[in-house]
Amino acid sequence: MEPTEIFDAMPFARHVGVELTAASDGEATGHIDIEAHHSSTPATVVAHGGVSYTLADTVGGAAVISLAETPTPTVDMRIDYLAPATGDRLDASARVVRFGDSVAVVDVSVTDETDDRIAEARGVYKTGGGDGDSAWDGGDLLE
Amino acid sequence: MEPTEIFDAMPFARHVGVELTAASDGEATGHIDIEAHHSSTPATVVAHGGVSYTLADTVGGAAVISLAETPTPTVDMRIDYLAPATGDRLDASARVVRFGDSVAVVDVSVTDETDDRIAEARGVYKTGGGDGDSAWDGGDLLE
Amino acid sequence: MEPTEIFDAMPFARHVGVELTAASDGEATGHIDIEAHHSSTPATVVAHGGVSYTLADTVGGAAVISLAETPTPTVDMRIDYLAPATGDRLDASARVVRFGDSVAVVDVSVTDETDDRIAEARGVYKTGGGDGDSAWDGGDLLE
Amino acid sequence: MEPTEIFDAMPFARHVGVELTAASDGEATGHIDIEAHHSSTPATVVAHGGVSYTLADTVGGAAVISLAETPTPTVDMRIDYLAPATGDRLDASARVVRFGDSVAVVDVSVTDETDDRIAEARGVYKTGGGDGDSAWDGGDLLE
Repeated sequence: MEPTEIFDAMPFARHVGVELTAASDGEATGHIDIEAHHSSTPATVVAHGGVSYTLADTVGGAAVISLAETPTPTVDMRIDYLAPATGDRLDASARVVRFGDSVAVVDVSVTDETDDRIAEARGVYKTGGGDGDSAWDGGDLLE
Repeated sequence: MEPTEIFDAMPFARHVGVELTAASDGEATGHIDIEAHHSSTPATVVAHGGVSYTLADTVGGAAVISLAETPTPTVDMRIDYLAPATGDRLDASARVVRFGDSVAVVDVSVTDETDDRIAEARGVYKTGGGDGDSAWDGGDLLE
Repeated sequence: MEPTEIFDAMPFARHVGVELTAASDGEATGHIDIEAHHSSTPATVVAHGGVSYTLADTVGGAAVISLAETPTPTVDMRIDYLAPATGDRLDASARVVRFGDSVAVVDVSVTDETDDRIAEARGVYKTGGGDGDSAWDGGDLLE
Repeated sequence: MEPTEIFDAMPFARHVGVELTAASDGEATGHIDIEAHHSSTPATVVAHGGVSYTLADTVGGAAVISLAETPTPTVDMRIDYLAPATGDRLDASARVVRFGDSVAVVDVSVTDETDDRIAEARGVYKTGGGDGDSAWDGGDLLE
């Protein structure tokens, strides 16, 4: 199954409107057409931080899967917001910067339809050893 | 307007199903009842990382607003995933650890209905100077 | 070799003055006595952010090694500064919150001699597969 | 006083061997010549994560000061390690990606003398309202 098919079948990505457009060789792209229900305020449409994050995490994961060819759960992600998401569309472009046997590091840039930078994210994903549900299979949660 | 009312009126929080239950004195709580559309896989229900993140960012913001009494856009947030979100519900508990004139630092813990830790997040929010849409009003985006 | 011996022999930890006092069962403690050369300003003694970070990364690593019993290079770490480090001493207390086959997540709290919180850090460390120099042995650095 | 002079007078930057070479218009560069005391192991010279971090935080701060012309304490920084620092030198290049009235976001890349990427860092710095010792003057540390 191609990465784009995996993500087309991902319920939450569909619920938020993520369209994955490409994923190969450690790079991936995708976008969300912004609608009123994405807003953080009822008065005007400014996409909630969770919209940019969901797009970044999803497209970042697709970039890793294009190399790992196995489910690659997110270990952690940091997102920095650079401008209010007031446009009609959010585009994400992800690139794996380091791909290892057990984890990968990915950079994701989120822009709007005028190419203004909206957010930048950096995440670590599991590349081996998990079963797709979690980065932590086989691990212990300490009290 | 009370913080809980502000968040009830937040379109994306409603779209994802965030229920904010309390927000005062720098602390806030909220939850999401997990349904099939929150899943990252079609086969079983495991909440997507964007669900925990949206809950954490929203409840974290409510904790800051309870002190700031003004919109407080997110500057950045890091989330670490500790276990797969396979339960029926995600609960978030947020606490402001530092509240300054311009930014605040917040810790958020996400657990499931059996109190298993699912994720931990730490974020920085703007506490002054913005207009509610962004942390960056008055700032310059450098090329 | 005990974790405390490993860290006593770590040249940079000695150069910065890190004293590791305990490391077992996923927890570790250590401190630095602050001197003029730790300062970020020549006029008064306020420890540079790199001092708190070096302490946090070192004590965090010791907490992981106490469980992994193998070198555990840092994959990433985020540090949030909560107050100026104007005291005579920095104490760090680290706790592994999740220990997996390939990575672990650690929380570290840095306080001064009056128990004021100075910084909080969260890091991911490799727990398997490396040779002690890096988290990335066997991995590819993508262009 | 020029940024390079401010950093020449910074005791901890001197203790770790940071040489700041340029800082203007939101960009800065600097380096550290790696010696045995920078190592994380006694057997071979592999620079400790605190060395790359101290370089990144210092050069990142210089990039912000070049625009702010006031002390700019670090609010938070995340560093991701991409390769073991086994070379003779670490170079850092920092760029302010967003400069606001109260905070700035900075990207820092750390490479070795062969241009191999060693680490990437992203930090938030205070740009106004502090007194140089901390991002938190005027703020409350909550219990």
